[in-house]
Amino acid sequence: MRIAIGVEYDGSAFCGWQRQHGQPSVQAAVEEALSRVADAPIEVVVAGRTDTGVHGLGQVAHFDTGAQRSVHAWVMGANANLPKAVSLRWAMPVSEDFHARFSATGRAYRYLILNRPQRPAVRRHFVSWVYPPLDEARMQAAAELLIGRHDFSAFRASACQAKHPVRELRRLQVRRQGELLAIDAEANAFLHHMVRNLAGVLIAVGSGKQPPAWAREVLEGRDRRLAGVTAPPEGLYLTGVTYPAHFGLPCQPAEPW
Amino acid sequence: MRIAIGVEYDGSAFCGWQRQHGQPSVQAAVEEALSRVADAPIEVVVAGRTDTGVHGLGQVAHFDTGAQRSVHAWVMGANANLPKAVSLRWAMPVSEDFHARFSATGRAYRYLILNRPQRPAVRRHFVSWVYPPLDEARMQAAAELLIGRHDFSAFRASACQAKHPVRELRRLQVRRQGELLAIDAEANAFLHHMVRNLAGVLIAVGSGKQPPAWAREVLEGRDRRLAGVTAPPEGLYLTGVTYPAHFGLPCQPAEPW
Repeated sequence: MRIAIGVEYDGSAFCGWQRQHGQPSVQAAVEEALSRVADAPIEVVVAGRTDTGVHGLGQVAHFDTGAQRSVHAWVMGANANLPKAVSLRWAMPVSEDFHARFSATGRAYRYLILNRPQRPAVRRHFVSWVYPPLDEARMQAAAELLIGRHDFSAFRASACQAKHPVRELRRLQVRRQGELLAIDAEANAFLHHMVRNLAGVLIAVGSGKQPPAWAREVLEGRDRRLAGVTAPPEGLYLTGVTYPAHFGLPCQPAEPW
Repeated sequence: MRIAIGVEYDGSAFCGWQRQHGQPSVQAAVEEALSRVADAPIEVVVAGRTDTGVHGLGQVAHFDTGAQRSVHAWVMGANANLPKAVSLRWAMPVSEDFHARFSATGRAYRYLILNRPQRPAVRRHFVSWVYPPLDEARMQAAAELLIGRHDFSAFRASACQAKHPVRELRRLQVRRQGELLAIDAEANAFLHHMVRNLAGVLIAVGSGKQPPAWAREVLEGRDRRLAGVTAPPEGLYLTGVTYPAHFGLPCQPAEPW
């Protein structure tokens, strides 16, 4: 039987999603907790790996098991065995043709920026701190030049293992409420570091270092070295993964901020 | 010279505001950092002590010093010496008749609740988790029965050191956005544990254990044993302290959530 799960985690407590020898990973924590519930070894396949410090709100994964447990038992049992920095949001039996990574038709990320002169204390692991004043209207103007189906080579980490660099960026929206800015990004899929590189370019535009049109220049240059700084991981959240409706996965409400 | 400061802190990293032997307190951290900037010992007087786990967003304090430093030097110097869980938001010279505690005419707190079946992971130190569904309209109806100038003995911790139990509760507002509820409370001053006891009563009403009118019964009973559970500290934030306008203290923008 194949089970899909929704996972939330505080990325500051882990080396990232993926198992790494001698370091605490979200994957290892989830597999260990589910294995206890199943009373047999379980391996999970994830929709999107996240880097060290990046948070998961709407991460999705799947696993195969012979263990018969109720949905409630999977969620409550896993949460009783998981470290406090990880929580299972839901579990659901799915058909064998569901694959957390390959069935996904879209991913949504949010990048949160605290924009003020003094460094954050309460939100220090959960926002990226930018002290020069950011002009969110300039950032939005730049963002609109990047939306669409493009070769995003300029926004791709050198270590990126994707076969091709073309992605369809469906949404790139900048909002402000007080000292907080949120950049919401949605695409069919993202290249490695793509959201953080998009955020880096938007921050350079918002702080006045570059004009909005520079975002398009960077995109068309297809050269990572043009895009400048990769924004830090602590402001980044994987907020959701989209699947074809026939799989019937739960739709999770977005966090307000 | 007397200097007022605005302080933000993550209460989960401290035993509370007040200095305690052998435990990390916000007060000790702030005094040590300021003493380094002043190059002389500094003692701070705070507007409102907070308990273990309670966060400060708009905490205010003052200190006296002979050291001549710019406002910028106080803030940047302190932030360079403070632990990451504390940040100075502002500093400002004030007249000698300003007193962080005795000049304050109002305090504002926010109590944040994550209302969902699964425990929080990302926000685990920053919200109170309530899993039964809460009806925020019922909570607001109960809240309105508590607003005003009353004897709040029923909402007072047994260890409370205040001389009298009468406080003027000016605002008690319940809002929901998705899975998050915020209770905003404003008063001239609060008794020890008063906000957490108010939250405990509103949660009992919101979950259906008690009718809204019970809030008034508890208030009029003036007996702490009637009010039930003190809500946990991790959802509580001191968001601001109000002073007479002639002191000219900065008005800090509220956090969205």
